[in-house]
Amino acid sequence: MILGIDVGGTSAKFGIVHPDGTIKHAKRFMTAEWVDGDGFVASMTKEIGNFLKEFPSIKGVGIGWPGLISLDRKRVVLLPNIPSVKDCPIVDILKSEFPHIVFRIENDAKCAALGEYYFGKNRKNTFALLTLGTGVGGGIVLNGKLFIGGRGNATEVGHMIMSNGITLENQVGIQHLISYTKKRLLDDKGITSSLHEEEELSPKVIRDHAAKGDVLALDIFKHIGRILGEGAVNIIRVVDVNTILLGGGISGAIEFFLPEMKATIEKWLPAYYTENLYIGQASLENDAGLLGAAGLIMED
Amino acid sequence: MILGIDVGGTSAKFGIVHPDGTIKHAKRFMTAEWVDGDGFVASMTKEIGNFLKEFPSIKGVGIGWPGLISLDRKRVVLLPNIPSVKDCPIVDILKSEFPHIVFRIENDAKCAALGEYYFGKNRKNTFALLTLGTGVGGGIVLNGKLFIGGRGNATEVGHMIMSNGITLENQVGIQHLISYTKKRLLDDKGITSSLHEEEELSPKVIRDHAAKGDVLALDIFKHIGRILGEGAVNIIRVVDVNTILLGGGISGAIEFFLPEMKATIEKWLPAYYTENLYIGQASLENDAGLLGAAGLIMED
Repeated sequence: MILGIDVGGTSAKFGIVHPDGTIKHAKRFMTAEWVDGDGFVASMTKEIGNFLKEFPSIKGVGIGWPGLISLDRKRVVLLPNIPSVKDCPIVDILKSEFPHIVFRIENDAKCAALGEYYFGKNRKNTFALLTLGTGVGGGIVLNGKLFIGGRGNATEVGHMIMSNGITLENQVGIQHLISYTKKRLLDDKGITSSLHEEEELSPKVIRDHAAKGDVLALDIFKHIGRILGEGAVNIIRVVDVNTILLGGGISGAIEFFLPEMKATIEKWLPAYYTENLYIGQASLENDAGLLGAAGLIMED
Repeated sequence: MILGIDVGGTSAKFGIVHPDGTIKHAKRFMTAEWVDGDGFVASMTKEIGNFLKEFPSIKGVGIGWPGLISLDRKRVVLLPNIPSVKDCPIVDILKSEFPHIVFRIENDAKCAALGEYYFGKNRKNTFALLTLGTGVGGGIVLNGKLFIGGRGNATEVGHMIMSNGITLENQVGIQHLISYTKKRLLDDKGITSSLHEEEELSPKVIRDHAAKGDVLALDIFKHIGRILGEGAVNIIRVVDVNTILLGGGISGAIEFFLPEMKATIEKWLPAYYTENLYIGQASLENDAGLLGAAGLIMED
């Protein structure tokens, strides 16, 4: 039995992950309460203890973190959302508390890629996963092995510089997409777009207008497609994958940005890279990180 | 004893590589003569046979190719400069001719990185090598292992798209540097640059003027530094290395472009990546490829 934990900026999700990819006994804890209470690490240790007591057949615990991990995968080096967990030897701490349990830690975006690898609908041995949320994260699996790079924190693809001098994340991240849409609406002097009627913008709202044929909404996704295409080109040139999976909020609009994304890739890459290129939606949505954290234990 | 072979667009260099990194009995064959004669592969096979006869203690032959290599490292998939060597099962061909010899093949830029890894002055376990020549090639070693990516042809870093919508190679490659310099000279209406006096431009000529304090030449290297800095940022984000080695013609001007390259990197990357970042010249120059080809045999 495996316990998967997905640490996020606002909450930490626990769940027992079965080999078929179902999550049982899921529980959610608010990060701020832990930090303000006994401290994040002490609170997490206590809740892990509760799970181990309730489910004595748990053999391993995998934990995904939204931050930097040491090359030896024993320490959380930096956790921007929970600054107190900095340079924390979390694996040794947990191991000393629960000596018979296997503990593994990994970056959360890399966990999401592992989740797709072990439990996704469209399993591939070699692929890059881009999670398009508030931030843009990346996880890459190469021939069945999670790629962590030379010092352990590779595939931070959201921070690549794109062709207009702005990073991928600062254009495709949800807030940036909304800012860009507002700017485009201000420029839309003819007031032709039905998006003007919306009080609150979100990827879903913009997508709904694109689905109704709104020209501005369609053009915004064309812009997103071009940026994602350029990002894919750079990723493919550096790590040579021919499957790109897209997860997170904006990926739901894939039908509207995929044509331009593909056209951009075709423009920049020769046949070797594009011949069998597959770009599609990731299948696990919000559970990818927790499932992938459990996957860390399956990796052994 | 190891025979290293460095196949180039115009010539193929052979040499016996000693464990201390010296090359003995070097020989050079013109590619065009091989192609026009018995064909490239037959001619190469014959010359390998001659070497094996002359030096019976050769146990392995490593060959670097300026093209794409199959993931199983047995076939040359594509060789733009020698189109007849396409999808050629070169390792099986050589093995059937010389069954007792170990044959290994690799991309030439990756060989250059292996050369630096085994024989360079400033050996590191984890680094990216950029070769700044007519083209811009890349080879990356991660924790002592050459990185070939998911499908075998990773680290084509010269073809990443930079912040002005042009690839790294199409700005930093020698011909592009010269074109850029000519354009800047045309714009230099005040005729203040001493570069106007030169009949023929080359990286060395531009560097010499920069060394004399020519403002335009210095500004050109500043431009190069910014582009290389952006390239380094994207590479570092994707593969997480903290050593960048620069080889090839333009790397001789490193003192003039390094400050801007570093400033660009500092602008885009947080402390984790920059704290112990080292950027320096590669040490092997033109022999890197041949030495690295021999390194393929040492890898076992």
